[in-house]
Amino acid sequence: MRLRLDISYDGAPFVGWARQPGLPSVQESIETALATILRIDGVQLTVAGRTDSGVHARGQVAHVDVPPDAFAAVPGRSDLSPDHAMLRRLNAMLRREWKGAIAVGNVREAPEGFDARFSAIWRRYAYRISDEGAPRDPLARANVLWHDRALDPESMHRAAQQLLGEHDFLAYCKPREGATTIRTLQRLDVRRCSRGLVKFEVQADAFCHSMVRALVGSLIAVGEARADEDMPARRLAAQNHDGMHVAPAHGLTLEEVGYPADDALAARAAEARNRRDTC
Amino acid sequence: MRLRLDISYDGAPFVGWARQPGLPSVQESIETALATILRIDGVQLTVAGRTDSGVHARGQVAHVDVPPDAFAAVPGRSDLSPDHAMLRRLNAMLRREWKGAIAVGNVREAPEGFDARFSAIWRRYAYRISDEGAPRDPLARANVLWHDRALDPESMHRAAQQLLGEHDFLAYCKPREGATTIRTLQRLDVRRCSRGLVKFEVQADAFCHSMVRALVGSLIAVGEARADEDMPARRLAAQNHDGMHVAPAHGLTLEEVGYPADDALAARAAEARNRRDTC
Repeated sequence: MRLRLDISYDGAPFVGWARQPGLPSVQESIETALATILRIDGVQLTVAGRTDSGVHARGQVAHVDVPPDAFAAVPGRSDLSPDHAMLRRLNAMLRREWKGAIAVGNVREAPEGFDARFSAIWRRYAYRISDEGAPRDPLARANVLWHDRALDPESMHRAAQQLLGEHDFLAYCKPREGATTIRTLQRLDVRRCSRGLVKFEVQADAFCHSMVRALVGSLIAVGEARADEDMPARRLAAQNHDGMHVAPAHGLTLEEVGYPADDALAARAAEARNRRDTC
Repeated sequence: MRLRLDISYDGAPFVGWARQPGLPSVQESIETALATILRIDGVQLTVAGRTDSGVHARGQVAHVDVPPDAFAAVPGRSDLSPDHAMLRRLNAMLRREWKGAIAVGNVREAPEGFDARFSAIWRRYAYRISDEGAPRDPLARANVLWHDRALDPESMHRAAQQLLGEHDFLAYCKPREGATTIRTLQRLDVRRCSRGLVKFEVQADAFCHSMVRALVGSLIAVGEARADEDMPARRLAAQNHDGMHVAPAHGLTLEEVGYPADDALAARAAEARNRRDTC
């Protein structure tokens, strides 16, 4: 049977989502906990967004295939469903190990045909900056970049609108052998939000490596008036990643992954709307 | 001359606001930085709210008396006012030492007669809990208590309204020799906010030691239905602090301190409104 997991993490203690031998990764932490709870050897997670070192997630999605009898045998109070028993044990184990840096929000049987990576129709990231005009909040410093100059969000927003649509984003990607860099950028909104922060919201069918941070890096030059508003679109057209500026990892958070509707997903969308933050 | 400082901090690395020999405190960190920048020996801060170990602040206020010539001599770019030059150097030094755990939002000459402690007319704290029904956000874990049971905010809110007004809060205080425990509780709102968190907003003319956390601890018993809605008021009337339950420090944040209006303060209130968070 296939389980869907909804996962949040603070990226700081990890080398990223993906396993790397001998280094702490989100993937290995959760796989190890699952294997221990299910008392089986190999557990392999497939993820919607392979976040880089230091990048955070509030709405990461992964799936895992497990033997139904092992899942049904997870011990828990008699009034708990296997989903709920698994969720409790998983979070208790992750919390002991990682002091709250990883939290699993939901574990449930995935709908027929669901694949966390290939069923996803969009990924949405946020990038947050406290610029010269915004108060520095020590309690938010884990996921907000502190930037010493003033930024103009309206100018960045106008520049960003020229990048929407399907393009070859080679100028904003660290290319990987054999992988396409053609993506459809569905949304790139930049605004100053209620807490004074400058917030980027970036949505695409998928992203190539470093793409969000390279887009943000290019727009920061516009926001400081070091570059004109057409520069990011000229870079895109030139398909050249010389001089690509990648913004720091800790300002970036994977906020949500979109899937085609089914009953469970409709419920989840309502929940996401309910907890929408203003920043 | 007297300077007013607006200060935010993550309480985790500190034994609290107040100096303790050989231990890291917010007060000592800022006093040391000020003395270095001003090239003088003794600098003493007076603060609006002496927060305990692990308690955070977003709107702490302090004042310090400094020699005018030392203040005017703080080096900075020629286009910067002394306030601004001081602010930059202070934050640069604190950031090197504390990696963003302390940030000073404003340094400016205080209005005539201003005293950070004695001019304050109210203090407002927030206490945040992610209960069983709320998503766990690893990125907010520094200042949100994760509570494994479900809480009923409406029931807690009703119980809280019975505590408003001027009372002897001995039942909710760790008493200090010779200090009164009579306080005026102006506001104690409990609600579930947009991110699913349960948020307490507590305002009084002043608080005695551990008072907010003791009020929250008592209301949690109501929120779990372990106690009826009249229990917190009965405790208050009994003036007995046996069995006082003090909620953990890291859920508590000093959000704002109120002073009588003057021009600068009116500007500050507008700014506070502007950055008001929904949670």
